[in-house]
Amino acid sequence: MSNTPLIISAAIVGAELTRDTYPNLPLTPDEIAEAAEEAVNAGASIIHLHVRDENGLPTQRVDVFETVTEKIRNRCDCILQYSTGGAVGTPVELRCNPVSLKPDMATLSMGTMNFGSEIYENTEETITTIARAITDNDVMAELEVFDFGQLETVMRMVKKGLVPERHHMDFVLGVPGGMAATISNLVMLVNRLQEGQTWAVAGLGRGQLPMAMHSIAMGGHVRVGIEDNIYYRKGELAVSNAQLVERVVRIAREYDRPAATVDQARQILGLSE
Amino acid sequence: MSNTPLIISAAIVGAELTRDTYPNLPLTPDEIAEAAEEAVNAGASIIHLHVRDENGLPTQRVDVFETVTEKIRNRCDCILQYSTGGAVGTPVELRCNPVSLKPDMATLSMGTMNFGSEIYENTEETITTIARAITDNDVMAELEVFDFGQLETVMRMVKKGLVPERHHMDFVLGVPGGMAATISNLVMLVNRLQEGQTWAVAGLGRGQLPMAMHSIAMGGHVRVGIEDNIYYRKGELAVSNAQLVERVVRIAREYDRPAATVDQARQILGLSE
Amino acid sequence: MSNTPLIISAAIVGAELTRDTYPNLPLTPDEIAEAAEEAVNAGASIIHLHVRDENGLPTQRVDVFETVTEKIRNRCDCILQYSTGGAVGTPVELRCNPVSLKPDMATLSMGTMNFGSEIYENTEETITTIARAITDNDVMAELEVFDFGQLETVMRMVKKGLVPERHHMDFVLGVPGGMAATISNLVMLVNRLQEGQTWAVAGLGRGQLPMAMHSIAMGGHVRVGIEDNIYYRKGELAVSNAQLVERVVRIAREYDRPAATVDQARQILGLSE
Amino acid sequence: MSNTPLIISAAIVGAELTRDTYPNLPLTPDEIAEAAEEAVNAGASIIHLHVRDENGLPTQRVDVFETVTEKIRNRCDCILQYSTGGAVGTPVELRCNPVSLKPDMATLSMGTMNFGSEIYENTEETITTIARAITDNDVMAELEVFDFGQLETVMRMVKKGLVPERHHMDFVLGVPGGMAATISNLVMLVNRLQEGQTWAVAGLGRGQLPMAMHSIAMGGHVRVGIEDNIYYRKGELAVSNAQLVERVVRIAREYDRPAATVDQARQILGLSE
Ligand SMILES: [Mg+2]
Ligand SMILES: [Mg+2]
Ligand SMILES: [Zn+2]
Ligand SMILES: [Zn+2]
Ligand SMILES: [Zn+2]
Ligand SMILES: [Zn+2]
Repeated sequence: MSNTPLIISAAIVGAELTRDTYPNLPLTPDEIAEAAEEAVNAGASIIHLHVRDENGLPTQRVDVFETVTEKIRNRCDCILQYSTGGAVGTPVELRCNPVSLKPDMATLSMGTMNFGSEIYENTEETITTIARAITDNDVMAELEVFDFGQLETVMRMVKKGLVPERHHMDFVLGVPGGMAATISNLVMLVNRLQEGQTWAVAGLGRGQLPMAMHSIAMGGHVRVGIEDNIYYRKGELAVSNAQLVERVVRIAREYDRPAATVDQARQILGLSE
Repeated sequence: MSNTPLIISAAIVGAELTRDTYPNLPLTPDEIAEAAEEAVNAGASIIHLHVRDENGLPTQRVDVFETVTEKIRNRCDCILQYSTGGAVGTPVELRCNPVSLKPDMATLSMGTMNFGSEIYENTEETITTIARAITDNDVMAELEVFDFGQLETVMRMVKKGLVPERHHMDFVLGVPGGMAATISNLVMLVNRLQEGQTWAVAGLGRGQLPMAMHSIAMGGHVRVGIEDNIYYRKGELAVSNAQLVERVVRIAREYDRPAATVDQARQILGLSE
Repeated sequence: MSNTPLIISAAIVGAELTRDTYPNLPLTPDEIAEAAEEAVNAGASIIHLHVRDENGLPTQRVDVFETVTEKIRNRCDCILQYSTGGAVGTPVELRCNPVSLKPDMATLSMGTMNFGSEIYENTEETITTIARAITDNDVMAELEVFDFGQLETVMRMVKKGLVPERHHMDFVLGVPGGMAATISNLVMLVNRLQEGQTWAVAGLGRGQLPMAMHSIAMGGHVRVGIEDNIYYRKGELAVSNAQLVERVVRIAREYDRPAATVDQARQILGLSE
Repeated sequence: MSNTPLIISAAIVGAELTRDTYPNLPLTPDEIAEAAEEAVNAGASIIHLHVRDENGLPTQRVDVFETVTEKIRNRCDCILQYSTGGAVGTPVELRCNPVSLKPDMATLSMGTMNFGSEIYENTEETITTIARAITDNDVMAELEVFDFGQLETVMRMVKKGLVPERHHMDFVLGVPGGMAATISNLVMLVNRLQEGQTWAVAGLGRGQLPMAMHSIAMGGHVRVGIEDNIYYRKGELAVSNAQLVERVVRIAREYDRPAATVDQARQILGLSE
């Protein structure tokens, strides 16, 4: 039973969500910064960040990332993790650009797949390109793995030096087209990791809470937030990202895994070195 | 995500524990009945029962089971589950005897194994004998499975009609000599069950809390109590069985699985038919 | 231990292979028909068919499929299974077309993924369209599953009525971007199937022989052929498709699973009904 | 795909078999030595040895082991592996005795369990005692694991220094009371090993051939012989141990894993150091 402090990552915006679906969605730099601060106060130590343009649409524009970053930094300390996923269809050059701002971490999605009715495109060339941007900027990669073969791709590409050996792993489970958010699947993935590898799980939709429970008890870390799941429980929208974080904190406390402080999270991830 | 109410079974006495190890151990009929009531008030719906004789030693004497049963029934409603395990070394005839009192449930251990430095003996003949006593008295069996081969023995013996097809399953994990209390092991076991089969898990020692967490999120049920684990957390003895039950109730509530009432538990287990 | 006759599927041409890589590659209708006949004589009961145009390039042209089919039918009885995969990049309309010829079976690839440095595109819409063509022509589908999430997609789409419930399953393992050809992966996939579901495995490259061995001993069926693997052993090109089939037949005979005759294969697959 | 030569262990006598069940059973020192020689000529490199007294009953008498050993050594080179299992019920002192003859290897059974209607008793104390005899005589241990918990016991006892870290692993699958001989079970066990650990599998009865097939393709080693399985195929008794070995050799050859010579086996197991 591991009592390592629990790193909670809050995915507070996302790229696909709209106010039609989730009315409290933070869109402007100020709203996003406020949501980040609330999540951090609730117990999150990583902010998984997408940003939106003036029209509330997802963007990979460097200036917007810069503005939002500054606003967040003014409000609170946290590990900032930029998404390089963009929205479905964003060209790879644009996806990479914000990494030049040298956030603490950046995501690297490890394969192409159906994402519901769309294709989420991450060719080996795309992966290699984004990986290089991450490495060149001395940023830490969080590898996003949506299916089992993508985990084997990680190993193959790490061995070839195309993907950074020093990374944090995130299993994103429950995308229609990827692996379902089941404990059986999570165990298969975790059993395939190297000993000592840090990992988190993000369960989509109704998979968010079970995956968080399991990860707490497995010694993993957790991603929650409205990007992945807008409900607090069946039929009841979450009030805020902070509300989703708070529940995980309460459960983790019962388990004697306190939510990691930002400094603890940095240490666990090797970001303070 | 299953929101079936959570059946919590409290193993409040055990056969091996002494006051030297756990000072608050209930031993007399009154103490045991009081511990049962507290556990039920805390949220348990099944009391997994061992009893002790006048010297505090484990016994399968019918009169003692009868006395304790009466005292518990006078205090609270609950599903009473008698252990037929006895202490290590109890002869099979004695192990069976209390089943004649027709409790709601009785345990049936599904194999022989090392239990630390002892042998816990359950030959196929023993299993068959106890199973017959259970069936003849119209009691529901809880099958205790400590290792993977024992689960395969269940299937073999059910097919031969030697073990009741209608049963509740309990995976007891963490005995030195049996399967460890890991999520990888629990998933292997649960994946091997038939769809719709009800099951619980009892993790021993420091495995109690993680197994409970996982089971809550997997749609299984949970056994806790000082028989299996005397610590609330590392280095801190549990105050009571109720304290261990309460934590599970709180976590289950966060997960939106309320602790089953006794009536709900009867319905889930098919005991009310 | 299942002694069901072993259905061997021969993937004799493929879409990507060229004579530069594999000099004995059958390209013309006569060559393909001859390769099919040899494979059937060696013990294959299914011919997994791609065809080539006058320039040796992969094509989904109906007239070419028609010509090759006639030539094969003139030489031998077999279960003809058309590929609807086409080459990487073939538009979905073209991929479907040959199904109108009503072959015994047609493939249906269950997801989008990286295929080495390319993308193999099978959106949910593509899957649905091809599935409809297969069903409308009363053809039996072989579902091609390359990763774990694709198997879960099968279940989801079958439940929605978008993919035929009556199908044969083929796990294609070893594509860089999909699941590796390991026994651990094969077991995970097979454990996820419904009881009684027929399945085969096609291991790519050096995974071909191990996957065949395991499948023989697991009661599954086997696909071999130069589409998947051009080597007989490390460093030694296969002489022909038949040579690869013959080895599987010899191993299966040692295991007391005779290679299925075409009639036996029809019966096992439910094609004779 | 591993092409390591395949170490075939022949279990040529066993402790429980009688001539009533298997008429060709070797019983006298000469018969056993002849059976050993035939098995080695067929491709076995390890002889797993039980011996019988003047009445054909299983014995752990040192003088009988000595006589048989001398007769085998006169006929052929092989790795001699003494069973310390004895028959069900043999006291631990007797089980240990032959180890004083310093064979190449000796078995060490890793737990207590039902063995059909009997108990196969191996308490932690028994294991420790036999392990010490093995170590003190500078013999290599083959750990016999019949259930999952026994593998976890190996790890626990190795860590405590009670079981030799340098050992060969043998999974004995298919005992009623232990784990069934299924590929799913074998994969679970093998996945739990350390990288580089050598292992073999012995499938009982009709599990012998499938387990051999899987092990060949997994890079493991194989035990066959009439101790574990008296049939060549359903309803047809094996002619001899050699016949069972020969089939494995033929399959392994098709897989390009030649049967290990005795010298190769010594090298793979680290016995030549
Ligand atoms: Mg209650
Ligand atoms: Mg030899
Ligand atoms: Zn994101
Ligand atoms: Zn008990
Ligand atoms: Zn193909
Ligand atoms: Zn033996």
